[in-house]
Amino acid sequence: MKKISTLILALIIFQVNAQQRNLAEKLGYGPNDKLLIIHADDIGLAHSENIATVAAMKNGVVNSTSIMMPSPWATEVAELVKDMPDIDLGVHITLTDEWFNYRWGPISSKSEVPGLVGKDGHFHFDCASVAKNASPEEVEKEIRAQIEAALALGLKPTHLDAHMGCVFYGRPEYVASYLRLAQEFDIPAMMVNELFEGVVLPNKGLFEGIDLEKVKIIDKVIIGSPEVYDGIGLASFYTESLQNLEPGVNVLLIHVAYDDEEMRAVTTRFDHWHSKWRQQDFDFFTSEKAKKLLEEQNIKLVTWREIGKL
Amino acid sequence: MKKISTLILALIIFQVNAQQRNLAEKLGYGPNDKLLIIHADDIGLAHSENIATVAAMKNGVVNSTSIMMPSPWATEVAELVKDMPDIDLGVHITLTDEWFNYRWGPISSKSEVPGLVGKDGHFHFDCASVAKNASPEEVEKEIRAQIEAALALGLKPTHLDAHMGCVFYGRPEYVASYLRLAQEFDIPAMMVNELFEGVVLPNKGLFEGIDLEKVKIIDKVIIGSPEVYDGIGLASFYTESLQNLEPGVNVLLIHVAYDDEEMRAVTTRFDHWHSKWRQQDFDFFTSEKAKKLLEEQNIKLVTWREIGKL
Repeated sequence: MKKISTLILALIIFQVNAQQRNLAEKLGYGPNDKLLIIHADDIGLAHSENIATVAAMKNGVVNSTSIMMPSPWATEVAELVKDMPDIDLGVHITLTDEWFNYRWGPISSKSEVPGLVGKDGHFHFDCASVAKNASPEEVEKEIRAQIEAALALGLKPTHLDAHMGCVFYGRPEYVASYLRLAQEFDIPAMMVNELFEGVVLPNKGLFEGIDLEKVKIIDKVIIGSPEVYDGIGLASFYTESLQNLEPGVNVLLIHVAYDDEEMRAVTTRFDHWHSKWRQQDFDFFTSEKAKKLLEEQNIKLVTWREIGKL
Repeated sequence: MKKISTLILALIIFQVNAQQRNLAEKLGYGPNDKLLIIHADDIGLAHSENIATVAAMKNGVVNSTSIMMPSPWATEVAELVKDMPDIDLGVHITLTDEWFNYRWGPISSKSEVPGLVGKDGHFHFDCASVAKNASPEEVEKEIRAQIEAALALGLKPTHLDAHMGCVFYGRPEYVASYLRLAQEFDIPAMMVNELFEGVVLPNKGLFEGIDLEKVKIIDKVIIGSPEVYDGIGLASFYTESLQNLEPGVNVLLIHVAYDDEEMRAVTTRFDHWHSKWRQQDFDFFTSEKAKKLLEEQNIKLVTWREIGKL
């Protein structure tokens, strides 16, 4: 019996993937085209993150970003991108505030999402605490509140994704809410193969009413890691990643801010993902070297806006 | 009839003031002593405000501050003052967020204090909107939440005061909540004559259960104004204020931050109370000139901590 269900599952995966894997093709590209979204997460987090991300999009090769709506600096983003009507700007669904001295919480009423609120009255610090405490209903309420807040700010989100992956790797129900709301608001939601095959397909009952064929599956997500930062360094990692990029739709996730007084304080006591890291991301993706690499490697930048039109 | 009540009111005012006016005397000073609290409002507002205020207290003549608990940077304050156990640090009851691009709201659940929340889901921008929309119950709930949040952060508030005076000049019931909670938590609440005589005494029914004799009435509050900033300038105003200080307990209210990237963004589109203003406050109250003026004028610095011990 187990063998048969595994076989059926494998067939389903094969079938869905056969439909999904042609995202590049649907975008009008061939099977050998190397497509890339250079995506700066976390705009809205802080003033430093805001101005650096916008600068990296105007002057560098960063071509997509997503906003943390619960953060106090989200409002500034709407002003900063006023003259960028075609910008790729999604909602970075945020269920945590990982920083020690810079604290904020859900957009929803705290009493309506108590599981998302820590002892200090703000978001939990990590995804594990979210998964342990927040019910699927609370998470769905907060995802909806964040999308609606972005719309209320006059933004037209080009996509959804998730901060620290808390929506992806918490409970399967969170993923269902994420896809359900993406469908309801008609906004593409970032989805990776691993998640689709590991969480969505084995829990099909949770995803009833969601047209899974329309889910946009990214072929590969590339992101620096603490090991990379401490080892070969981010610049080398990005260089190698671009040199070895595979055909299909790739998303390179980065975090862009300045290593300034504000950002050092936001990221205090962090040895990774901190202001220095974000400054290095800024430096690399506004460098001539990055531009040249994209040309040399014949990498084509694509956007969520294009994917959303499919 | 009206004349008689006016007479009675005048007698009450005289009687209470006779008891109140001796705050300086209760502190052990004579009738000619010029006493002063140099109070930096708004710590917690932003990282820039935090580090500048602490620096002005460590290196300058600023000897008291009060924290905005709803602001995302409030948590950092607890860390910054860890090595200052005797610091004068009160709770700056905050019911508004006046800044355009840096938005946050109440500590209480939004659904429990809807009158404190504007259309954008954050605090209203001004006191008039608070007075129009927020019930006394909502304001009392939020004042309590802010005091409790300060205590939860490990702070031991030396006093209460109110941001932009929204608690003072909104509805008389707000003032009653402010004094009632001050009594309940045994924290002195800043009170000025004008408010005591103009709001408290004529609405005695609202203040039942509050021992008005124990309310600490400050003789004079001195604060720069937009007219001063645009006119003679803050430094001249402070110089003259110190040169002409009258005997009694005076409070000089200032706002200390750096004119840096973060603070310029927080105060964007403000021509007053902005980063430049706050830098000037920092510069003056960390100057040798300010120290000398205090000496020359024989001005004695007093604290809320001392007042609280009465």
